[in-house]
Amino acid sequence: MTATSLIGQSIVKPDARDKALGRTQYGVDLKPRDALVAKVLRSPHPHARILRMDVSKARQLPGVVAVVTAEDTPAVHYGRWVHDRTVFARDKVRHVGEPVAAVAAVDEDTAEEALDLISVEYEQIPEVVDPQSAMAPGAPLVHEDMASYGPSTVRRGGQGNILDQTVISAGDVEKALAQCDVVQRQSYQAPATHHGTIQTHEAVASVDATGKVTLWSATKSAFAVRQTVCLALGLPMSRLRLIVTAMGGDFGARGTAVIEPIVVLLALKTHRPVALTLTRQEEFTGTSYREPAYMELEVGAKKDGTLLAVRGKYTIDTGAYHDSVGHLRPNTAMLVGPYRVPNFHLEGFVVYTNNVPRGHVRAPRAPYPIFAIESLIDAVADKLGMDPVEMRLKNAVQNGDTVPIGAVVEHVGFTQTLQAVSAHLEKEGKPQAPNQAWGVAAGQWSIHPIESGGPTSAAYVKVNEDGTAVLVTGVADQGAGQHALMAQIVAEVLSIPYDAVSLVAADTDLTPYEQATGGSRTTYRAGTTVRLAAEDARRQLISLASERLKVAGADLGMEGGKVFSREAPEVSVTLAALGAASLGSRGGPIMGSSNAGRAELMEAMAKAHGTVDGPIYCCHAAQVEVDPETGQVKVLKYFVAQDVGRALNPKLVEAQIQGGVVFGLGGALTEAVAEQQGHVLNANLLDYRQPVATSVPPIEMTLIEEPSQFGPWGAKGVGEPPTVPVGAAIANAIFRAVGARVTTLPLTPDRVVQALKNRP
Amino acid sequence: MTATSLIGQSIVKPDARDKALGRTQYGVDLKPRDALVAKVLRSPHPHARILRMDVSKARQLPGVVAVVTAEDTPAVHYGRWVHDRTVFARDKVRHVGEPVAAVAAVDEDTAEEALDLISVEYEQIPEVVDPQSAMAPGAPLVHEDMASYGPSTVRRGGQGNILDQTVISAGDVEKALAQCDVVQRQSYQAPATHHGTIQTHEAVASVDATGKVTLWSATKSAFAVRQTVCLALGLPMSRLRLIVTAMGGDFGARGTAVIEPIVVLLALKTHRPVALTLTRQEEFTGTSYREPAYMELEVGAKKDGTLLAVRGKYTIDTGAYHDSVGHLRPNTAMLVGPYRVPNFHLEGFVVYTNNVPRGHVRAPRAPYPIFAIESLIDAVADKLGMDPVEMRLKNAVQNGDTVPIGAVVEHVGFTQTLQAVSAHLEKEGKPQAPNQAWGVAAGQWSIHPIESGGPTSAAYVKVNEDGTAVLVTGVADQGAGQHALMAQIVAEVLSIPYDAVSLVAADTDLTPYEQATGGSRTTYRAGTTVRLAAEDARRQLISLASERLKVAGADLGMEGGKVFSREAPEVSVTLAALGAASLGSRGGPIMGSSNAGRAELMEAMAKAHGTVDGPIYCCHAAQVEVDPETGQVKVLKYFVAQDVGRALNPKLVEAQIQGGVVFGLGGALTEAVAEQQGHVLNANLLDYRQPVATSVPPIEMTLIEEPSQFGPWGAKGVGEPPTVPVGAAIANAIFRAVGARVTTLPLTPDRVVQALKNRP
Repeated sequence: MTATSLIGQSIVKPDARDKALGRTQYGVDLKPRDALVAKVLRSPHPHARILRMDVSKARQLPGVVAVVTAEDTPAVHYGRWVHDRTVFARDKVRHVGEPVAAVAAVDEDTAEEALDLISVEYEQIPEVVDPQSAMAPGAPLVHEDMASYGPSTVRRGGQGNILDQTVISAGDVEKALAQCDVVQRQSYQAPATHHGTIQTHEAVASVDATGKVTLWSATKSAFAVRQTVCLALGLPMSRLRLIVTAMGGDFGARGTAVIEPIVVLLALKTHRPVALTLTRQEEFTGTSYREPAYMELEVGAKKDGTLLAVRGKYTIDTGAYHDSVGHLRPNTAMLVGPYRVPNFHLEGFVVYTNNVPRGHVRAPRAPYPIFAIESLIDAVADKLGMDPVEMRLKNAVQNGDTVPIGAVVEHVGFTQTLQAVSAHLEKEGKPQAPNQAWGVAAGQWSIHPIESGGPTSAAYVKVNEDGTAVLVTGVADQGAGQHALMAQIVAEVLSIPYDAVSLVAADTDLTPYEQATGGSRTTYRAGTTVRLAAEDARRQLISLASERLKVAGADLGMEGGKVFSREAPEVSVTLAALGAASLGSRGGPIMGSSNAGRAELMEAMAKAHGTVDGPIYCCHAAQVEVDPETGQVKVLKYFVAQDVGRALNPKLVEAQIQGGVVFGLGGALTEAVAEQQGHVLNANLLDYRQPVATSVPPIEMTLIEEPSQFGPWGAKGVGEPPTVPVGAAIANAIFRAVGARVTTLPLTPDRVVQALKNRP
Repeated sequence: MTATSLIGQSIVKPDARDKALGRTQYGVDLKPRDALVAKVLRSPHPHARILRMDVSKARQLPGVVAVVTAEDTPAVHYGRWVHDRTVFARDKVRHVGEPVAAVAAVDEDTAEEALDLISVEYEQIPEVVDPQSAMAPGAPLVHEDMASYGPSTVRRGGQGNILDQTVISAGDVEKALAQCDVVQRQSYQAPATHHGTIQTHEAVASVDATGKVTLWSATKSAFAVRQTVCLALGLPMSRLRLIVTAMGGDFGARGTAVIEPIVVLLALKTHRPVALTLTRQEEFTGTSYREPAYMELEVGAKKDGTLLAVRGKYTIDTGAYHDSVGHLRPNTAMLVGPYRVPNFHLEGFVVYTNNVPRGHVRAPRAPYPIFAIESLIDAVADKLGMDPVEMRLKNAVQNGDTVPIGAVVEHVGFTQTLQAVSAHLEKEGKPQAPNQAWGVAAGQWSIHPIESGGPTSAAYVKVNEDGTAVLVTGVADQGAGQHALMAQIVAEVLSIPYDAVSLVAADTDLTPYEQATGGSRTTYRAGTTVRLAAEDARRQLISLASERLKVAGADLGMEGGKVFSREAPEVSVTLAALGAASLGSRGGPIMGSSNAGRAELMEAMAKAHGTVDGPIYCCHAAQVEVDPETGQVKVLKYFVAQDVGRALNPKLVEAQIQGGVVFGLGGALTEAVAEQQGHVLNANLLDYRQPVATSVPPIEMTLIEEPSQFGPWGAKGVGEPPTVPVGAAIANAIFRAVGARVTTLPLTPDRVVQALKNRP
């Protein structure tokens, strides 16, 4: 009996083959044959009052089964974090693309025709489309009276168009700056960017004779979306079941209710299945995505590279509605980067405008403040004539440090990532070709104290009569291998093969509560819950074996699908025998469960309150070649060092990091939603340019394993950090190659040419 | 805050409306568009060796994707109770209709054509088609060497064609009979009868890229069928998920794997979805149903009606394979009926023949011994000149009696049912028209000691963030209202409306283990588990409320969706608030669970070992009119008194009893599978005559509520007992009307005419 651990084995994710073969069934593939087709009428104006609306002609069109407007919904405001939305615009529209009505018809053509028959009379009012104007006195108000939205509407401390604002400070920045040998100041800017998932949003809803709704949606936050839809439509949660369908990409697109309230409303109205699939155009005006941001930053250091002070301002254009988790403080705190800075004064603002609503994109809100600080640190290092990695090493955050939000960080592997980059650059050597150079930038993620995000997760593990097992979890798989990993954890705990674990997931009725597959915390948080549930099942198996073998539980081991006496290993019983015996046993069928919190985990976390167990740090290095004539930037090589705590499934970890870098390359070089007076000018994937296979350089990496305390086997989050520093790493490489500093993302050829012209 | 209990309220079952409107989606409605059609080649002979089989031509037919035979299956024997089956006949066929091969093709015509292209060379061998011949020395053996079937094959004590035999006795029958004032002796006989469900058997299987199979089947025993299919095909249970689809009638037809191994095998072979739907003909030769039985009975009583002795023999023709639960002892014990009999000697035999396999039909094995004893008791009463109800009252089993299987019965409501019939007959008065009379017969069910059936059940109850709840249970709903009842129990325990409970059920991966929806024990056993799971959730809610209200849990009450201080009811918190708060709480989301056995239930049951808590007794009265010329029997009125323990949902209880009586009317008057040398002559619903609406008399009833100890709120089982005494009640009524005793079921006109001729 030798231990053959599954931890560290690169098990293939179960959806890989079907996806590669094009066999995966997505929501539209599963819709009932008699489903009606839904279409949404959307505002053509960024800001306008609705004077009159007439849907009667649309209702009379043969083949139209229902037309719904704000009048068909309860007068409530809803949202996942801020309750500022209604299903349809009621008195005015606040952005281009805002839903004003929807139809359900027997086919798509009829639905389209019905939209044309709805007449809406608008009175345009002045729009406000940038946060600076929106914050100015007398600016048109996007939301005139949020207080009337009801007590559940969270207003986070702002006035006028300011939704949220924060100040974080320590020490005396003025005094510290005055003592610095070098002070650098710069403004940075970054645009709205889109997830650009291949699959557009789609959902299907169906109502049974008792009025209960089943909703199929490709969401990663089934429970949160159920909650939002119930809030929007006044449904008890017992009347709505959400089943998660296959996701054709997430990247943050699938965490909030986008079209679900509309499709559920139409199903309730028509008593027929209704399917709604957004067009690509609607993806750009009818969903929510990464906020444009404006950073002003001032950094001061001593001659030896010690950082003394950071002053910063971070302003987010959140568009007409706010779909992003409201942690402004930790994101503002990112303006100091992963460094020890004794004096800082940071301000953060979230501002409503009449742009398309903003929401989550992979690593929400992190890449832009990091772009600013990592660019400016690089400039300070250059000014001081220091090696940029050396400078970062000198100031790197360490175990036990208190970070700006006031928490203590533990299990920090940042220094090792910097050392790995240093080693890699030494191995690679300085590029000898002209206009080529390496640039570096560090990144960070998950600096919230563990309890701040309210990590809520539950799972249960059944042992079948033949000793195989079933894991029931609310975790949705976005394609990143979450399900492989969760099953791997159960198999490891029960000492059975990976294939002996069946996983069923993400159905609000059937599976235990799960907050979301997101925030890079699925393995860390849900993985821990799953491990505890499997351990609960293991305890029950040991207890049953103890009865049968007449050996005390403490003297029993479990390996290779058997429970055996440690003293006399031939005294053993298979899990298959225990599974079969459990049915008739006093204890009943084996069913282990865990609630995040029920067990020792939360007790330990409570003791560690205020500390951050699994902070994630990384350092990137990009080698670029810049064409000084055209400003074209080519990324030749890429290197990542990231602290992953423990790579439970190394291939999945590598794939996440590679994917994150590629995602970051888009934001760094080409991706920007072109907005003009609230209109989106490039609402298609031809004009909105994402990286393609040929634009991706070889990506090498070193995984640092500085284990966390509470993640399973020490694992930390992986998925979001690799996206964070890409823009800064490439911007710094451009500077090292041709001496030009580009301070606005993406780093397009015209900006590079302009920066070359501005060289001192 | 007034208690508004849901117990005793007739909540409408959730599937009623969809079924009435024809909107229910059955398995075939849900099958994937690209599903292959499966067809089964079946034996035309009752007993024959397979000399040669050639499937090559069928395989070559365009459109045929797979042809499978015994060679494609592991060499194992399987079955739900007795492991005597193989998926396809291997060396010989044992009954007409036994599968020998199956095909999967692109459409039904191609599949049919492929069957024609399979050539099988048989050598017929002598068949044995009645148990008397089968038990004779030198009879052809149906199973030559069961020992070779492997150690898991349970052989219950028989030899040759006898699968099982038992003797139960007490006292000294010879001596007692000699002391009797009246002794009556009679042989009885009853045929094979069929469930006759409207929906024939259907199943769909699909395999994903990882090789995992999903099986959709309208079974009431999802876990048992999964186990059987895995055994038959050598699959780990983690590789097969069974999802229960809507049932178009059960009546015992849906408790075992019938076509599931074939459809799963074809899906595994073809890697495509496969659907198989039996024809009506196949329902009669390719499934299993009620066994023909032969009863010999001798009853002796004293002048005052006291029963002194019963001698009996009970022989079952189980066909070529045995799909019936092997409790021969309690069924043989039914030969004494629900009476105190100090001396008895009862023999029981289960015998293989070359008839179609026998299995469960509503109230398996109970109606025929009851037909015998209830007919003969009636004859004895008549001989003694006693009122037949009076005679039964005199001998009725009482609390604390030891019944023939050796268990003590408690919570017995039999006497009350007899009294209710007596009162009803008095109210109705004796029919004055010629050839009309009332007949009575008693019935019983569930006299197994509680633990003998290994009642295994588990459930969990989640509380949503808005205070509504979800019940997750393995209980399948056959249409009798099981789901309404389970949800009602949760709503009652949590003091929330019925609509606030969502129920999801019967999926082997997602739901906790559940033995079956059957044996009239779903409410009694699974209902108790569900109640305990809900109480576990309730405890968690009270505990959370206690923290928030700063009131000790013991001082808190729960009513009307609130937890409140009993001392100061204004100190309260809603379940919605508690549900929302639970997500962030130390305890995590509220998730109550129960395993039959984990909690006090099994402890209490263990203490009560050997006693029967919820025995079910009933008494029926039928008023008939007999046409002495034609022998035609018309049932004019019907009355049932049944001890249901507690009617949790009276309408559902009444519907079960009405349905059970109608089912019994079929067996009493018209239903018999016509078998000749192993062939079924009436394999269609025109020649196999079931009751129709016009043949059903008004059915009145009185519900007796003598509560059980362990059933929820005292409930006992309901569904099967009403089928049990119908044949005897009508036979006795015929005797009372025209003096003719018919001793063979069904009570057809020719038999009545013959009995009239035989009158003494």
